[in-house]
Amino acid sequence: MKIQKRRTPARRTAATRDLVRRFGFGGDDAPPTPERLGAKGAGLAAMAALGLPVPPGFILTTEFGRRPRDANGDPEGIDAVLADAIESLEGATGRRLGDPDRPLLLAVRGGTRGSMPGLLDTILNVGLNEKVAAGLARNDPRFAFDTFRRFIHAFSDRVLGVDAAVFEDRVTEPAGTPAELRALCRSLLAVVAEETGSAFPADPAAQLRAAVRAVLASWDGPGARAHRALHAIPDEWGIAVTVQAMVFGNTGPSSGTGFVLTRDPQSGRKALSGEFLFDAQGYDVAARAADRVPILDAIGTRDSLARRLPDVFSELIAAASLLERRLGDMQELEFTVEDGKLHLLQTQPARRSAGAGVRVAVEMALEGLITRDDALLRVDPASLDELLHPTIDPRATRDVLAVGLPASPGAASGEIVFSAEEAEAAPKLGRRVILVRTDTSPEDVHGMHGAQAILTARGGLTSHAAMVARGMGKPCITGASEIRIDTRQQVLLARGRTFRAGDVITVDGSTGEVLAGEVPTRHADLSPEFTMLLAWADQRRRMGTRANAETPEDAEAALRFGAEGIGLCRSEQMFFAPERRPIMLEMILAETREDRRKALERLLPVQRQDFLALFRIMRGRPVTVRLVDPPLHEFLPRQDDEIDALAAAMGMAPEHLRNRIEGLSEFNPMLGHRGVRVAITYPEIIEMQTRAILEAALDAGGGVAPEIMVPLVLDRAELDAVLACISRVAEAIAAERGSAPRYTVGTMIELPRAALRAGEIARSAAFFSFGTNDLTQTTLGISRDDSAAFLGRYARAGILARDPFVTIDRDGVGELVRIAAERGRAARPDLVLGACGEHGGDPASIAFFAEVGLDYVSSSPFRVPIARLAAAQAAITADRREGGAR
Amino acid sequence: MKIQKRRTPARRTAATRDLVRRFGFGGDDAPPTPERLGAKGAGLAAMAALGLPVPPGFILTTEFGRRPRDANGDPEGIDAVLADAIESLEGATGRRLGDPDRPLLLAVRGGTRGSMPGLLDTILNVGLNEKVAAGLARNDPRFAFDTFRRFIHAFSDRVLGVDAAVFEDRVTEPAGTPAELRALCRSLLAVVAEETGSAFPADPAAQLRAAVRAVLASWDGPGARAHRALHAIPDEWGIAVTVQAMVFGNTGPSSGTGFVLTRDPQSGRKALSGEFLFDAQGYDVAARAADRVPILDAIGTRDSLARRLPDVFSELIAAASLLERRLGDMQELEFTVEDGKLHLLQTQPARRSAGAGVRVAVEMALEGLITRDDALLRVDPASLDELLHPTIDPRATRDVLAVGLPASPGAASGEIVFSAEEAEAAPKLGRRVILVRTDTSPEDVHGMHGAQAILTARGGLTSHAAMVARGMGKPCITGASEIRIDTRQQVLLARGRTFRAGDVITVDGSTGEVLAGEVPTRHADLSPEFTMLLAWADQRRRMGTRANAETPEDAEAALRFGAEGIGLCRSEQMFFAPERRPIMLEMILAETREDRRKALERLLPVQRQDFLALFRIMRGRPVTVRLVDPPLHEFLPRQDDEIDALAAAMGMAPEHLRNRIEGLSEFNPMLGHRGVRVAITYPEIIEMQTRAILEAALDAGGGVAPEIMVPLVLDRAELDAVLACISRVAEAIAAERGSAPRYTVGTMIELPRAALRAGEIARSAAFFSFGTNDLTQTTLGISRDDSAAFLGRYARAGILARDPFVTIDRDGVGELVRIAAERGRAARPDLVLGACGEHGGDPASIAFFAEVGLDYVSSSPFRVPIARLAAAQAAITADRREGGAR
Repeated sequence: MKIQKRRTPARRTAATRDLVRRFGFGGDDAPPTPERLGAKGAGLAAMAALGLPVPPGFILTTEFGRRPRDANGDPEGIDAVLADAIESLEGATGRRLGDPDRPLLLAVRGGTRGSMPGLLDTILNVGLNEKVAAGLARNDPRFAFDTFRRFIHAFSDRVLGVDAAVFEDRVTEPAGTPAELRALCRSLLAVVAEETGSAFPADPAAQLRAAVRAVLASWDGPGARAHRALHAIPDEWGIAVTVQAMVFGNTGPSSGTGFVLTRDPQSGRKALSGEFLFDAQGYDVAARAADRVPILDAIGTRDSLARRLPDVFSELIAAASLLERRLGDMQELEFTVEDGKLHLLQTQPARRSAGAGVRVAVEMALEGLITRDDALLRVDPASLDELLHPTIDPRATRDVLAVGLPASPGAASGEIVFSAEEAEAAPKLGRRVILVRTDTSPEDVHGMHGAQAILTARGGLTSHAAMVARGMGKPCITGASEIRIDTRQQVLLARGRTFRAGDVITVDGSTGEVLAGEVPTRHADLSPEFTMLLAWADQRRRMGTRANAETPEDAEAALRFGAEGIGLCRSEQMFFAPERRPIMLEMILAETREDRRKALERLLPVQRQDFLALFRIMRGRPVTVRLVDPPLHEFLPRQDDEIDALAAAMGMAPEHLRNRIEGLSEFNPMLGHRGVRVAITYPEIIEMQTRAILEAALDAGGGVAPEIMVPLVLDRAELDAVLACISRVAEAIAAERGSAPRYTVGTMIELPRAALRAGEIARSAAFFSFGTNDLTQTTLGISRDDSAAFLGRYARAGILARDPFVTIDRDGVGELVRIAAERGRAARPDLVLGACGEHGGDPASIAFFAEVGLDYVSSSPFRVPIARLAAAQAAITADRREGGAR
Repeated sequence: MKIQKRRTPARRTAATRDLVRRFGFGGDDAPPTPERLGAKGAGLAAMAALGLPVPPGFILTTEFGRRPRDANGDPEGIDAVLADAIESLEGATGRRLGDPDRPLLLAVRGGTRGSMPGLLDTILNVGLNEKVAAGLARNDPRFAFDTFRRFIHAFSDRVLGVDAAVFEDRVTEPAGTPAELRALCRSLLAVVAEETGSAFPADPAAQLRAAVRAVLASWDGPGARAHRALHAIPDEWGIAVTVQAMVFGNTGPSSGTGFVLTRDPQSGRKALSGEFLFDAQGYDVAARAADRVPILDAIGTRDSLARRLPDVFSELIAAASLLERRLGDMQELEFTVEDGKLHLLQTQPARRSAGAGVRVAVEMALEGLITRDDALLRVDPASLDELLHPTIDPRATRDVLAVGLPASPGAASGEIVFSAEEAEAAPKLGRRVILVRTDTSPEDVHGMHGAQAILTARGGLTSHAAMVARGMGKPCITGASEIRIDTRQQVLLARGRTFRAGDVITVDGSTGEVLAGEVPTRHADLSPEFTMLLAWADQRRRMGTRANAETPEDAEAALRFGAEGIGLCRSEQMFFAPERRPIMLEMILAETREDRRKALERLLPVQRQDFLALFRIMRGRPVTVRLVDPPLHEFLPRQDDEIDALAAAMGMAPEHLRNRIEGLSEFNPMLGHRGVRVAITYPEIIEMQTRAILEAALDAGGGVAPEIMVPLVLDRAELDAVLACISRVAEAIAAERGSAPRYTVGTMIELPRAALRAGEIARSAAFFSFGTNDLTQTTLGISRDDSAAFLGRYARAGILARDPFVTIDRDGVGELVRIAAERGRAARPDLVLGACGEHGGDPASIAFFAEVGLDYVSSSPFRVPIARLAAAQAAITADRREGGAR
């Protein structure tokens, strides 16, 4: 290699220590951290350090990638760094860049600390030119020109920016004799020269510099940027570039390339698996799937790596086993065999199914390979979701009719119905149905109970349909904008096809795909490892986990999934039941306080019965009941025919009823007459609710002490007014029954003002529960139901890359949560702090809540296992940060 | 008086120094502060200290009122305190409580530091019983029993809680001979005994203690509580009780009672005025208006105090003049003449009209009685509003047909119209009309321009109609829930009367009264004193005052009222003009970006012309233009017939258009797809707006540098995206025109997250303008348009006693404003800070903004004078607090 400037070795070492890390040849033992080397580079360095056969090479560290750029856009000092490193590598390999007799060819690969699959460039065979190819051809002309052809293709595409289509237009692929391949290379070179206006670079050093530059640039490619935005990967991670001597799997029958997994990626069972392709380079493996053989014999296999190259196989399994032990995780290795010699090219934690992830983590802890804490950290809490719901059989054929948002996981098939009423009636008639709506509202909730799954054309991941479905653990797809619903014709139109009411479809809530017909699904089976992992999590976590539940079914599910109590019982949900709705409507439309009280008296026994059932199921565990929250007009009918029917039932002129409904409607119901505001204007409603709660608590016995929660408070005076009302009722009950009910009263913190005034509010509240759904809506000024119109665009533009309704916005909402927690606790040290709402089931948000020191999180029953694991991870991470690792 | 327990004099003094303040007799020279003595007591103490003739007495201080209560509910130690004070008073007057020969009679009055007119009790003639009355009767029997009768009445009503109606039922008023009066007293005493079950208290000491107790209790009466809540008077002010020897104006022709004002309360002219009623006590003055005489002769008067009692008159005017000089404000004195001797009973700053307030303050400063700062502090900025608008002639007859909320001051008469279209057309037809609507929306704005005044049945003080009307300076009444509008029949129903379209009504926006027929009004005349006061204010204030303006008329008004620039030009307002709306609708409903650009190209010249007009009027003063803010669907028609017409005009199926409109509608538009979110999703809209702004700035010449303001930002990345778009347009214009436009870009802070992230956002913003309307909506979670349903109830319950949309909520919204100002300035020291929106014209809010150190406030043009004065007051108050008073 021609070197432009040489530094003295002493200065060189000092200058390049942070910039270059060698592996596979002497002299570098800096620790192989993925932060500096990227995951790929760190794996290579780790393998080399263990003495495993790795082609030698070096890594330009992320530090190098962050250097200031020179006039060419290259990191400063690139020439000196490369010259120095290549010189050493040439010395170690006995090969030289550009030497036709003993050419050094290089693989140049980008990497970062985490996975960015396929988004950072790789360029193989750097160092090839006509002269070197001719030299190689003396040995194996077909291999030489085939490799050169591949290199010209890849380098032109990725480095020179020549559109691959150009070659397709201009070059006819020949059959493949060496002479034909050589001619093909020449014509490819001519095409590139014509397209780019200058000759294809023949100087290997120039090729290397250009390749490194292209790989570095791929960090800022649109794909990589979008991926980082979507996965919240910070730009600061940066890119490392691995430059490694090429080895060749395509040199004959004792060569080849393959991969091996240390455990089974589907089940997690401890059994080696992998595949191998003889006489092939990496590019070919995907294309020649049929030719691949397993690495070891199994029933029905005719060939294997073990049978054909037993020594290589032995060395491979020893290496795999060593790596799993030393790296402490199930590994996925890539390797190449060149003329019977094994070269390990990559090792990384293996991708695995959610179930395998749990099993591998638990078994490795039981084997003593990792600690229980490691096992707990190893499993992505979000992946558990998949284990709790049925899934589409992976072998099934998928006839996709539309794709929407995967709003609630699980899969289910059923007949299409377009009305909540029909869906509700279905179970009694033995029908399995899918409720298909443009969107849903609280009136549809009972229909959703009756449906197997829900499909909506509008709405985002946090729309009403999505939230309710997740709460019920039912599969749901929202925002399927491809479908059009014509309720009058009772048809669903999608991609030019028409489906009628009664046609069967399948909803895959895990992928967002709507499938035609019935598709076989697999049941969720909770493995022993799953149960064990969560038991470990419970020992480790410091934050309690409760569930949001209103019905006996919800409460039973909550207990089944390990909830320690009910953190949010939305008392108004009970009013939506069809037989109660008329009473509720009568109450809302009452023109006098007297009439309202009469309707409330009829609601009292029903609501008391509901609470009694919940308290009995929860057997003394905490139950937090939220007083009526939504604006009353949400209970009112909106369709003309419904209004007419209601007017008739109430003996009212339809026009009058319409006026009443119009009068109650609001411009921004989210910010309207709801929550504690209803309690202040109609105290009789919460008198009834308090009575129902406290009488049910007395009836349930066993010292049940309900936690009464006041929603949407913004000032202590509101809470005080409600407190006075509650204690009046409690005193009356004590007088009537001769026994005083126990209870506490707290508030939701869901408005910015409440967070700021938390010190004052805490003086009247026994507990705070952060309602981060509404707190997010108000802090960001974003209506969840209307956000679909712009949040997608925001995510694509890198603004609010994560949906703030899915993962808590630490910078904004998070600061308010911190402020409220600090001020609240300062005013009242025994204040109990919790969080309910969607964020209570999101692992990243749970980690935040643990940081702030909340006492518990509450989520939908189906997300309680996720919360348990996430809370454990938060505790472990905090301990480790404080140096208290177990 | 019988004394129950005596303390030694030494202990007494120490114990009672803070609790009792004597006046009019020796030994007490503690400063007469209204905080301790109440305004009434402080006035008496001040007069006494000046040697003026004041009947002696003492004041139980607010400190006393705050003492812990004993078992009777009286402040601890009441007996000892009263006994001691009465003993001294008896000594000073030579009269004794209960002594029939020389009886001491007492006036017991409640007071606090400010005015609470009529809400704190007064009980006169305490100390009277049958024996004392008989003693007095030896001298003047009619006077004695008449006084006793009055006392029994008042004491029974206010202290014993006997309903006044009882007397009306049971006692026939006699003609009035002494004997009849005495008999009447006896039967009154009998009625009281029967009603209360015990004898009327005859012991003067017991009477006194009960009277004090009742007066103290009046502080917590419902009327007083409501008044304090309404006027934000803190409970901590507390009540003081004045106990003063009675003097009597009803002892004959040389006696009487009256009041005097040191200046004219209507005009403020420096001229004594007042009235006097011979042979009368305080109670009678109101009842016997016809018998009152002026205090000095004037044209047409036949009698006067000066003519009849010249010595008393001379002493009175000397006292009045001394008091005005010493107390430094126009005084209103109450006095009684008993047998030719003057007794001053009260002095207080005189109530005066808004115009008089200005004139008195300015003239007193010019006379050297007070400083200019004092003059500036003396005028309530809110009172200026009245001077800027026409008012109903006070002599006119008012036929009130309904009462609503005084939403925008001023008075106007006109024919009723029910549609915005008709109102808009009216001026061209020479018609003066009042636009009457259930409520208004942005589509009605053009109609409002054409109307003389606006009347709505719904909405609060900050409803759309109210805000727009205030911005236009037009009278407006909102929330007139008594009226019912039937647009089909074209009638307005109110209090059983029917008014048809075309009938003339008058709107008094200052009182909220809707009057039948045309009522004469008086024009607003800005006095020289008004101009001078505002000139002083301008010298004194440190905060700039800008106006919110979009039209040339608004901008002219802004300059006329002293605005230094435009702080908020709502660029989308320009799209509501009827000839522009179709283009706007085309733009909104465009199905492709291409179509949208075409419509925008047609809007460009119109909008450029609008900006040019504004820039020319403002002649280089700052103009802040806010990019499009409301959700686009606000521009769309909502009525079926309008939709059909639009569909026809656009050549579209009505059903299709209806679906498009439905698809754009939002659940919570306030939190929806608006502000910068529109800019991010449809950058072509702000490209057009930027082009219009910058080209207009170049066309206007003179170095105009518009400030482009981005609304509803919650994250710096949003602002950066808009900045990039704006600079692209600016570069294109520079290239096209050869001259680069100057401009700055800033943002509104109107979301809690923006306030919290202000440090980061400031790195991309040249200025912040606090949009405290929206910041209040989001911080409190209250939709302004929907708040009427509960905010009234809140105010009555003492929760959020002041409407947070009228006066900024210091505790919540205020903290966010402070946080944002601090973080923003820390990140960018030259950051310019302003506030626009309704609070920018509210004096209390302006005081807050000055405290936080904002650079300017922006309000509707008509409120700019208020802002100028309020800003001056804020500066003076701050200087005084820091000891830097001028």
